[in-house]
Amino acid sequence: MGGDGIDETLAAFRSSIDNIDATLILLLAERFKVTRQVGAYKARVGLPPADPERENEQIARLSELAERANLDPSFSEKFLRLVIDEVIRHHTRARNEAGRAGD
Amino acid sequence: MGGDGIDETLAAFRSSIDNIDATLILLLAERFKVTRQVGAYKARVGLPPADPERENEQIARLSELAERANLDPSFSEKFLRLVIDEVIRHHTRARNEAGRAGD
Repeated sequence: MGGDGIDETLAAFRSSIDNIDATLILLLAERFKVTRQVGAYKARVGLPPADPERENEQIARLSELAERANLDPSFSEKFLRLVIDEVIRHHTRARNEAGRAGD
Repeated sequence: MGGDGIDETLAAFRSSIDNIDATLILLLAERFKVTRQVGAYKARVGLPPADPERENEQIARLSELAERANLDPSFSEKFLRLVIDEVIRHHTRARNEAGRAGD
């Protein structure tokens, strides 16, 4: 293949990837909308930001789903870890803003 | 609030989160299906697995989208980085399997 001009095969693949990425980003934004409500609720009732038991359940459930979908389970675990760490950061901030830090 | 029994408010939030997570995982699986085709194509025509210019474009585009969706752009960048690193890993493997390593 030449280095000049647009590679149409690659451009078609990339157009699909771009659509999927936009959907992923909007879905992640929706997820954080829900977890922000969880964070506000946890801060209000005094629940800790992190819940290791729930996290382990999530990772196990999604790893199984990932495997069925032909996705590397170690990747799905890294992905969920990234998301959960961001959520805990939000929850900790919500807790601090609610003046419950340190209890 | 008590530590006993099911917290229905939290359970309702978590049910939404679980649905969103399942959708995210399936969408990621779909994304990797496309990038596997890209990897096979790149290996066939001799394109390198990584394309830094394309990556920078993707990160810029998604950061903008993330900001509009009220998502932390630094999170969306970390997310895309994780995905792209996994894709490059796949592409490198495809290239090696096609016997083009080192050229």
